[in-house]
Amino acid sequence: MRQLDLDLAEKSYPIYIGRDLISKPELFSKHVNGKQVMVVSDTTVAPLYLEKVKSLFVNYTVAEVILSDGEQYKTLETVNTIFDALLENHFDRSCTLVALGGGVVGDMTGFAAASYQRGVNFIQIPTTLLSQVDSSVGGKTGVNHALGKNMIGSFYQPKCVVIDIDTLDTLDDRQFSAGMAEVIKYGLLGNESFFNFINSNIERLMLKDKELLTDTIYQSCYDKADIVAQDEFELGNRALLNLGHTFGHAIENTLGYGVYLHGEAVAIGMLMAAELSHLEGYIDIKDIAKIKSILEKANLPTSFFGKITSSGFIEAMSVDKKVIGGSIRLVLLNSIGSAFICKNYSNKLLQQVIDNYCNIIN
Amino acid sequence: MRQLDLDLAEKSYPIYIGRDLISKPELFSKHVNGKQVMVVSDTTVAPLYLEKVKSLFVNYTVAEVILSDGEQYKTLETVNTIFDALLENHFDRSCTLVALGGGVVGDMTGFAAASYQRGVNFIQIPTTLLSQVDSSVGGKTGVNHALGKNMIGSFYQPKCVVIDIDTLDTLDDRQFSAGMAEVIKYGLLGNESFFNFINSNIERLMLKDKELLTDTIYQSCYDKADIVAQDEFELGNRALLNLGHTFGHAIENTLGYGVYLHGEAVAIGMLMAAELSHLEGYIDIKDIAKIKSILEKANLPTSFFGKITSSGFIEAMSVDKKVIGGSIRLVLLNSIGSAFICKNYSNKLLQQVIDNYCNIIN
Repeated sequence: MRQLDLDLAEKSYPIYIGRDLISKPELFSKHVNGKQVMVVSDTTVAPLYLEKVKSLFVNYTVAEVILSDGEQYKTLETVNTIFDALLENHFDRSCTLVALGGGVVGDMTGFAAASYQRGVNFIQIPTTLLSQVDSSVGGKTGVNHALGKNMIGSFYQPKCVVIDIDTLDTLDDRQFSAGMAEVIKYGLLGNESFFNFINSNIERLMLKDKELLTDTIYQSCYDKADIVAQDEFELGNRALLNLGHTFGHAIENTLGYGVYLHGEAVAIGMLMAAELSHLEGYIDIKDIAKIKSILEKANLPTSFFGKITSSGFIEAMSVDKKVIGGSIRLVLLNSIGSAFICKNYSNKLLQQVIDNYCNIIN
Repeated sequence: MRQLDLDLAEKSYPIYIGRDLISKPELFSKHVNGKQVMVVSDTTVAPLYLEKVKSLFVNYTVAEVILSDGEQYKTLETVNTIFDALLENHFDRSCTLVALGGGVVGDMTGFAAASYQRGVNFIQIPTTLLSQVDSSVGGKTGVNHALGKNMIGSFYQPKCVVIDIDTLDTLDDRQFSAGMAEVIKYGLLGNESFFNFINSNIERLMLKDKELLTDTIYQSCYDKADIVAQDEFELGNRALLNLGHTFGHAIENTLGYGVYLHGEAVAIGMLMAAELSHLEGYIDIKDIAKIKSILEKANLPTSFFGKITSSGFIEAMSVDKKVIGGSIRLVLLNSIGSAFICKNYSNKLLQQVIDNYCNIIN
């Protein structure tokens, strides 16, 4: 087992990465407050791991909530069903919530933990590659609103993150690829050697080689923890982690949550950001080909099907959280391994990139 | 104008208390972030003060949300209407929310500010006595759930609290009395001389003498700020502020939110807590008479109408946030001006007090 620590003063917490970790009660017990544990999972993950996870907490009152699986259920109404279960079971302020599942389960459980009785403990057990390398680390919690993704939520850190690599055995290929999008993102935004490492090993990674996966997940969490420790509330460089996300959110929001997986939308979004970067005179055209190639090798989409008009796309981008004072801040690429936050791009060039992807010339 | 500062390190903020403060833009401008201001009010307060408050923000984009008035609307669904308005108006992360109204508006606006895009600025303009002396100060935000009061929310501090005494001119007598319950609470829980001051001046206070009111509100906020500064997250002595509240919440929750005003329910609850304290051998019987008398002079109820069974009452108490590890912690009184948190009271005596109030002998 490998361990990383996310350094946030009194809110610091460990990230455990290894095999068969959900068989080790001693990893969890020191992070459980009180005597009541609520495991939150979804209809896909619960049949696979719920009983095993519940049996980690033998001397506790354990209850469960099983949510519908999918980004389209990441809503305030669904979070309310967690509150219902907590109250029906008389769970008090000293209880602990355990998120068992992917990013959707983790984001909603975290928000429920942040808001139940003004804050209770929670633990992340991410079971998808995407949640293991990204959403379970850093304390972003929340839900979608019909008018925008992740618009409602809070910064609320877990007590620990337990990444059991073996849970990836049951992850379907499409979900695995979606996770690879966020892995590739770390290479692109700030770690060229990691990008090259992924690029050299992509075939074996896609076959879920456990040793390679452990290294890859560790490095992704390391890079993320490093950025989050410096900027918990995204006042500065944490925004670099949103590479591809403003475009991606627009795709998800416009086509409907769940049509493209979050990681898939981010993959397309990263390519769009790279193309705009090139048009703006930054990243080299050869690097764009490299990015497209690695995404394809990871079985990720590099364009989207489905009707989005350019104006609808821009409208959807304009309700993203990266909008400040009416202008959209975008994460662009100088080169592979070097991203920056840009406010002074050309709207015409942005329009051109969007038009290309929307297949509409206005 | 008088000013108090709530000392919470980088989250510290001023509380301004005085007359006609909502005519002073300079008080607000330094606390407004960005260029977008959303004023949240309700159907009672908006017709009185909304235009005046909006005109404080001349160089800003100003929008508004008007909520239905009443504790029964303090729900997640209502908060969602604030999110709707923020998103429809394209409000970004740099916006400022202004709560204009009583405790219900303040609690929901604060929770919306805490949760919109993971946290935006907010300002409290409390217009009821209760919100001026209690709920606007200290950062408790949230909504009710069908199964329990204030069960969903967060600790989220405003940038400032502006208490314009003149807004009390339009407050109806019943609401004013409800606020007096919380004023009396500060005397009871930790400030005997303040209790005596209120007791000596209760008639003039009930006539809304402005000078007396200013002193009274200042002292109430001072006492509250002092406790909150020491224990922001209610891990210890902040719980003393809940004197009468566990009983009061049970009344509100069982009879339905809005039947008794929060302050009215707290008044009855404080008397119930005092009676239990006496049965437990703490406060003197003469002091209970004094408490009952001051509540009556403030036109507050000292018993409740409406059917509550003892068992229903206890069930409702058991979902209060003060429940830890299955046992209800109560705030009891040693004497007037001296409260303490008690876990070791007799359930039989508690039952006896509840039976008396529920008029049912089981």
